[in-house]
Amino acid sequence: MNPLSRFSINQMTVRQLSLPALADACAGLGIPAVGLWREPVAEYGLDAAAKLVRDAGLTVTSLCRGGFLTALDPAERTRALDDNRAAIDEAATLGTDTLVMVSGGLPPGSRDLVAAREHIADALALLAPYAAERGVRLAIEPLHPMFASDRCVVSTLDQALDLAERFPADQVGVVVDTYHVWWDDRAPAAVARAGAAGRIHSFQLADWTTPLPAGVLNGRGQLGDGAIDMREWLERVEATGWTGFIEVELFNDGLWARDGVEVLEETAGRFASETF
Amino acid sequence: MNPLSRFSINQMTVRQLSLPALADACAGLGIPAVGLWREPVAEYGLDAAAKLVRDAGLTVTSLCRGGFLTALDPAERTRALDDNRAAIDEAATLGTDTLVMVSGGLPPGSRDLVAAREHIADALALLAPYAAERGVRLAIEPLHPMFASDRCVVSTLDQALDLAERFPADQVGVVVDTYHVWWDDRAPAAVARAGAAGRIHSFQLADWTTPLPAGVLNGRGQLGDGAIDMREWLERVEATGWTGFIEVELFNDGLWARDGVEVLEETAGRFASETF
Repeated sequence: MNPLSRFSINQMTVRQLSLPALADACAGLGIPAVGLWREPVAEYGLDAAAKLVRDAGLTVTSLCRGGFLTALDPAERTRALDDNRAAIDEAATLGTDTLVMVSGGLPPGSRDLVAAREHIADALALLAPYAAERGVRLAIEPLHPMFASDRCVVSTLDQALDLAERFPADQVGVVVDTYHVWWDDRAPAAVARAGAAGRIHSFQLADWTTPLPAGVLNGRGQLGDGAIDMREWLERVEATGWTGFIEVELFNDGLWARDGVEVLEETAGRFASETF
Repeated sequence: MNPLSRFSINQMTVRQLSLPALADACAGLGIPAVGLWREPVAEYGLDAAAKLVRDAGLTVTSLCRGGFLTALDPAERTRALDDNRAAIDEAATLGTDTLVMVSGGLPPGSRDLVAAREHIADALALLAPYAAERGVRLAIEPLHPMFASDRCVVSTLDQALDLAERFPADQVGVVVDTYHVWWDDRAPAAVARAGAAGRIHSFQLADWTTPLPAGVLNGRGQLGDGAIDMREWLERVEATGWTGFIEVELFNDGLWARDGVEVLEETAGRFASETF
């Protein structure tokens, strides 16, 4: 079996590559799928990007990202909901069935994580049917607890599932990203719970390396460089019957400073060696 | 009621102060208790430090720290156990009943968190009776999951309790430190579980502020500056019947750069305003 047949490269991993350069490099390396981000897609042009990936025969496994739904200010909340509807439209145009949702952090001045999580549920109730009409599923991504205050109040797979399970599985599911959940002794059971319900809408890999950089955003490790057993996680997810693409999404200043094609080749190689 | 009657200042918060300066400042501000660290105590001299705090009438609420018990190499493991016995002896000499235990990270080359946690249990079985004979309780401190690989494989209160409950409650308990557990929606239930079993051996406060600094070690926020509701946490712990001292332990480069007595006064003031 071709070790790259289920490999998807998240665009952010090689953000130094333009969309055409990424498509070319994927063709050259036999990479069948990509995860895209809204900002570089908008920069290139949404319709042009959709045509580019279609012509290249690339599967778009996800669009990052919607979310940031915790604002209390009514005007901000309306803006956030509008922006999420736009993201859903963009996902549909790009031909992906999955929009990754990063919930957002605590609203200014609030210390109430529970209320913020409920706020997200209210927003999902508005957005999920809109997305379903366009063939798009919302995938709630729990982020590592170190992002709980400023980026994502949903910190564990169980919390993400508690939210997702209020909606039909073909409308709202979760992202399993090794970087965010690897430390959690309850994550294996949550993966089983998510898989049994058909709610694993995206599976992403990144390794955990230390020391973390300032701001802790751009220190995700290349596969094999860190503390996470990728093969174990793949087996765990596949044990639920899951057979989708596996995205590699690295935010890493070191990788971004290098030649993009070289990083893509290295990442594909690591994917093969760490998961097969 | 005197708002500082249950306040304990962890020495690390004002590490720019020598032990005598700390004792003087505590006397001046009416602070009745301190948490000590092994390194500055050793530098001042163990017996001299014990005499100093005794003469000053200060309660020593804890000694930081034992632990780092995950080494697989037999020689390293023996060294770690010997070092922990020394820490227990030091705690007894200083007149505190509580040694804080930070478990240690993954051993070199290992990606097996479960095995590392079991390894700690084996070590506790050797150390807990030794400590009990000296009137010292071991307090397992779960550290924030961002420390799971390199510092502490015990990331949640529930994990700490799972370990502690293998031993008598007067031998092994847990530390509840707001900084490490505030994000965890299961922590409130774990606090109740710990309190009901008499296993809250230490209660520490620090606030969560962002952005985190590089290495993420020295970014603990002054009480009131961050995302954590201190009053809610105090009420939660007290609801279990707990009436001990409350330690404030901040690792913060900004605070360390300032005048130590000024920081101590500010911290005592914040303790009063944020918990009363």
